[in-house]
Amino acid sequence: MQNFTYHIPTKIYFGKGQISALSQELKSRAKKILIVTGGGSVKKYGIFDDVLKEVKKAKISYIELSGVKPNPRLKSVYKGIDICKKEGVDLVLAVGGGSVIDAAKTIAAGVKYKGDVWDFFENDVACTASLPVATVVTLAATGSEMDTFAVITREDTQQKLAFGSETSRPVFSILDPEYTYSVNEYHTAAGIADIMAHVFEEYFSNYSGAAVSDRIAEGLLKVCIQYGPVTCEKPRDYIARANILWANTLAINDLLDMGKVGDWASHAIEHEVSAIYDISHGVGLAIIVPNWMKFTLSQKTVKKFAEYGVNVWGIKKDKDEMKIASAAIDRTRNFFNSLGLPSKLSEVNIKGDRFAEMAKKAITSHGQVGSFKKLSEKDIVEILKMSL
Amino acid sequence: MQNFTYHIPTKIYFGKGQISALSQELKSRAKKILIVTGGGSVKKYGIFDDVLKEVKKAKISYIELSGVKPNPRLKSVYKGIDICKKEGVDLVLAVGGGSVIDAAKTIAAGVKYKGDVWDFFENDVACTASLPVATVVTLAATGSEMDTFAVITREDTQQKLAFGSETSRPVFSILDPEYTYSVNEYHTAAGIADIMAHVFEEYFSNYSGAAVSDRIAEGLLKVCIQYGPVTCEKPRDYIARANILWANTLAINDLLDMGKVGDWASHAIEHEVSAIYDISHGVGLAIIVPNWMKFTLSQKTVKKFAEYGVNVWGIKKDKDEMKIASAAIDRTRNFFNSLGLPSKLSEVNIKGDRFAEMAKKAITSHGQVGSFKKLSEKDIVEILKMSL
Repeated sequence: MQNFTYHIPTKIYFGKGQISALSQELKSRAKKILIVTGGGSVKKYGIFDDVLKEVKKAKISYIELSGVKPNPRLKSVYKGIDICKKEGVDLVLAVGGGSVIDAAKTIAAGVKYKGDVWDFFENDVACTASLPVATVVTLAATGSEMDTFAVITREDTQQKLAFGSETSRPVFSILDPEYTYSVNEYHTAAGIADIMAHVFEEYFSNYSGAAVSDRIAEGLLKVCIQYGPVTCEKPRDYIARANILWANTLAINDLLDMGKVGDWASHAIEHEVSAIYDISHGVGLAIIVPNWMKFTLSQKTVKKFAEYGVNVWGIKKDKDEMKIASAAIDRTRNFFNSLGLPSKLSEVNIKGDRFAEMAKKAITSHGQVGSFKKLSEKDIVEILKMSL
Repeated sequence: MQNFTYHIPTKIYFGKGQISALSQELKSRAKKILIVTGGGSVKKYGIFDDVLKEVKKAKISYIELSGVKPNPRLKSVYKGIDICKKEGVDLVLAVGGGSVIDAAKTIAAGVKYKGDVWDFFENDVACTASLPVATVVTLAATGSEMDTFAVITREDTQQKLAFGSETSRPVFSILDPEYTYSVNEYHTAAGIADIMAHVFEEYFSNYSGAAVSDRIAEGLLKVCIQYGPVTCEKPRDYIARANILWANTLAINDLLDMGKVGDWASHAIEHEVSAIYDISHGVGLAIIVPNWMKFTLSQKTVKKFAEYGVNVWGIKKDKDEMKIASAAIDRTRNFFNSLGLPSKLSEVNIKGDRFAEMAKKAITSHGQVGSFKKLSEKDIVEILKMSL
């Protein structure tokens, strides 16, 4: 087990009606806030009204930045930074899913940085200060409400990159499972693939001996397998929505990678796909992850895949670990399909003509792609071909 | 799933050599500290020297309060409070196991309180302020290094009571698995029983639907079952010590009771036993918990026990849930025994003559004992008799 530092100070208000905590939290932290929202669903479903009631109760002022898109764009971020600087905003409140939260984090960090905020993404400049960020979550997928990361797309260069900083971890987040009721079946399913992919990225690791992290990871995967289909079929099932929402948060808040080093190759590859084709991140992952698994399975890695098969899918122990491992990968693919997610890039109108470019960009952006299995450009192209 | 607030800001430095983080942490927080220690093992094994090196490096001054006993006494606490007040101490550093940490927490809270610190324990006075507490952990058992609780024994009245306050949660804790190498087999085993008992208290709950908490709980139990025996047999096995140490911390830091309400009857009963007989808390739990399980098992509770049997012990699913449940309870008892822990109070020289008094005190202290199954005085006497 590797040494680690664990420090997750985000305060989580979880459950129905927890929006009532918002006014006091805002009042104690800010005089003027920027509220970042997405395409309008938070207004349609009354969540924005709930937020405004609390803002009013807190007797603080606000400005809104609406229209942040999935795969959030750098230009929205620049706009938010300008507003914050002009208006003297002292807290950024994201009301939405991961894209909205990631935009909010990047805006908050950009306000405190003299240069171009894109430096954090492309030029490895360390982010050391940020306005406080808070969130009201409406989608279980990215877990951005308790982690340090943000992923932003720069349209002109078709780059989709991440940055992370302890200063970007939200100070508080409100998670009401009822706020996720309106997410449609397809995006609910994509969210589940995203959550499970986060767990896989941390679970599949060459650093053995981090049993605590591994057993917790398996537990979260079992929650996704149990309740994922329920959230798709019965969108207003509170228990199912609640468990998926909490699993989503814990999946990427640091808990699962304590004592080990994750892989993150599937994410690196998917980001290159959605940077160009603007597909939903979770859909991309549902396609790529099982192929990454197939490509990665070898005599060297079989033990971990077999462990996954036995502990998560309940596959019977067998001397032939390769058999268990293959069955586990098949179960993963079939599970995503059962949620209505595609198996192939061609199903979402992606052709194979830009795979070499994607692979090159992935390597350029990350230096090294993968840790459980280190991938070359050629390997990435191969995984993309398997995904076609 | 019940609503909850999750907020665990303690910073954890985990792994070998992490003591090197101490000087910077102390320097940024304090000018004069009280170092609380136990019976001398931290000096014998060089841990105290490691701490002093860091204190010197931080250029701060310190006073030591040594000799805090297992089942820490109120009189040690009073002594610590006096020192802190006289000397103007601004942080309390515990170097030891749960008893030392609990004494440190109570001292730190007492310094900020005008009345008698025992008010927090017996008179339900809310603790709203505390000096900052930090810890260097030397025993995997109580998880006190990341939680809000302290348990103190008042000798003259033979009371052993707990208090909890968010202000008592340590600001940082250093967990080096090598610092637990010197714990002998018996106390290592008692620690494992304590950890597992914490998990059980949160796992066995009438609040269904908190699947995330339940699956994580099962994961931590599996870690104890895998690595507990190893720590007893090979005290210098780093991976085993590390996993048990991290499981111990997560077992009671709040993670496992999110969305549900725990039981805590076994703890309430054991505290009355060790208040009078001064046995090791973990030993008392190893005796009582399996009997609490047997007493609690009924048609109403069998489902949860069967879930425990299948998910933790890998007992084959069966239509007869009572069969699985009974087997799971037997496995629990046998596991504790396999670690060299006793099954009966009589093995630790406790007779049955004061059971009625214990049961009465448990009810008086807690108002209600148990939640998964609410226990009457008569029930508690029965469990104690079963444990004799």
